[in-house]
Amino acid sequence: MSKTVTACLIVIGNEILSGRTREANLQYLGARLNELGIRLAEARIIPDNEEAIVEAVNACRAAYDYVFTTGGIGPTHDDITSACVAKAFGLELERNAEALAMLKTHYKAEDINPSRLRMADIPRGAALIENPVSKAPGYQIENVIVLAGVPRIMQAMFEGFRHRLAGGQKMLSASIASFIPEGNLAAGLAQVQAANPDVEIGSYPFVRGARLGVSVVLRCADGNRLAPAAAAVRDLIRTLGGEPMDEEMA
Amino acid sequence: MSKTVTACLIVIGNEILSGRTREANLQYLGARLNELGIRLAEARIIPDNEEAIVEAVNACRAAYDYVFTTGGIGPTHDDITSACVAKAFGLELERNAEALAMLKTHYKAEDINPSRLRMADIPRGAALIENPVSKAPGYQIENVIVLAGVPRIMQAMFEGFRHRLAGGQKMLSASIASFIPEGNLAAGLAQVQAANPDVEIGSYPFVRGARLGVSVVLRCADGNRLAPAAAAVRDLIRTLGGEPMDEEMA
Repeated sequence: MSKTVTACLIVIGNEILSGRTREANLQYLGARLNELGIRLAEARIIPDNEEAIVEAVNACRAAYDYVFTTGGIGPTHDDITSACVAKAFGLELERNAEALAMLKTHYKAEDINPSRLRMADIPRGAALIENPVSKAPGYQIENVIVLAGVPRIMQAMFEGFRHRLAGGQKMLSASIASFIPEGNLAAGLAQVQAANPDVEIGSYPFVRGARLGVSVVLRCADGNRLAPAAAAVRDLIRTLGGEPMDEEMA
Repeated sequence: MSKTVTACLIVIGNEILSGRTREANLQYLGARLNELGIRLAEARIIPDNEEAIVEAVNACRAAYDYVFTTGGIGPTHDDITSACVAKAFGLELERNAEALAMLKTHYKAEDINPSRLRMADIPRGAALIENPVSKAPGYQIENVIVLAGVPRIMQAMFEGFRHRLAGGQKMLSASIASFIPEGNLAAGLAQVQAANPDVEIGSYPFVRGARLGVSVVLRCADGNRLAPAAAAVRDLIRTLGGEPMDEEMA
């Protein structure tokens, strides 16, 4: 039996919910985790609020193999992620010597003020995650991985850290487009889905130029099950007078 | 006392979690709800999975004044939102005569096949929300509002529907940028926050050209409390040798 490894992303930040800032980490993490055989099964966007953060961290770490958080680990008063993660685990938040040494490679001595020192306050026992951009680290405690919110920094942290993640069987996928309207494809697609219950089949309409079409995405960890389902979708499209076009997956 | 009206967005779709498709409704809804005095307090992105949808709808409709869902109301087998919302409420999913009439204005008689007819299957008693783009409607049941996932259609539905939402006191905001690094501003900003507990103050670093700066965003329903806090932030920036720049909020 293949094991499905799951993850949840908790995006922490009032600025995302108010519409001020566009969320920009979900798509990246979803795609990268996929490559590692880890399935992003949920994402939650929550405010900079202690009760909301503690509750989300505890609910999600019980429900998923991995929990990623982004945001709220900077130097200002509204950066409360580390204090909340410590509280969720019942751990002390303490000045971390290794994190402090990292900050000292980035800031001049006179710039290491009490606000910036907050970025070295890490829940006790956490394993640090390097930040090659601005040095203030992320960290992992049990199955919870705390990352920066700024996409460039989050991505740099993740790329240096990903080898520490234990993935499961990788999802394979195929994407087949055609200019058959979704509503014409739907009945046949439901039959292909019924005949291939282990393959997850999604249909995503698009407009290209003035033409209406649909991309059918098939996903399965087992290539021997994926291939015949994809072939059935191509046959269906041809039967309906269309031309199946294999697409590169992002 | 002012009333805070809250909302939650449930984004339904495997394609968002897998990284195939970029989520594109959260920012729009967050900003538009703000204008109506409704605070988007959480967003959840969940898969096309009955258990996940029913659970999220029931958890969120108990916790927030309004719940918006996007996605999963098309004609294909993976469009299960309406069946799940009906199940969450313990309502029958039934062919809705008004919705059917709407579809008939868009599709030729011979194109109204059983798959497209699924888009007229609506939980009993729901109030329809018009879809000026492709006619298949959204709907409201109690405090749950079901919208399309395609951003252009979702926005058109929302714009025609928004007058039916009962907002609370509108959040006012100010955004003040400067080229003071966040870590230098942090201590003074914490003091301004402590002196103005009813004003929510967030700080968001940016890089413009090669210069590091920070935008301070202040939010409060009461303009008489917002103004002095914003003035204190401008004073703080000047004290630190910077030039406060008032920004337009999105």
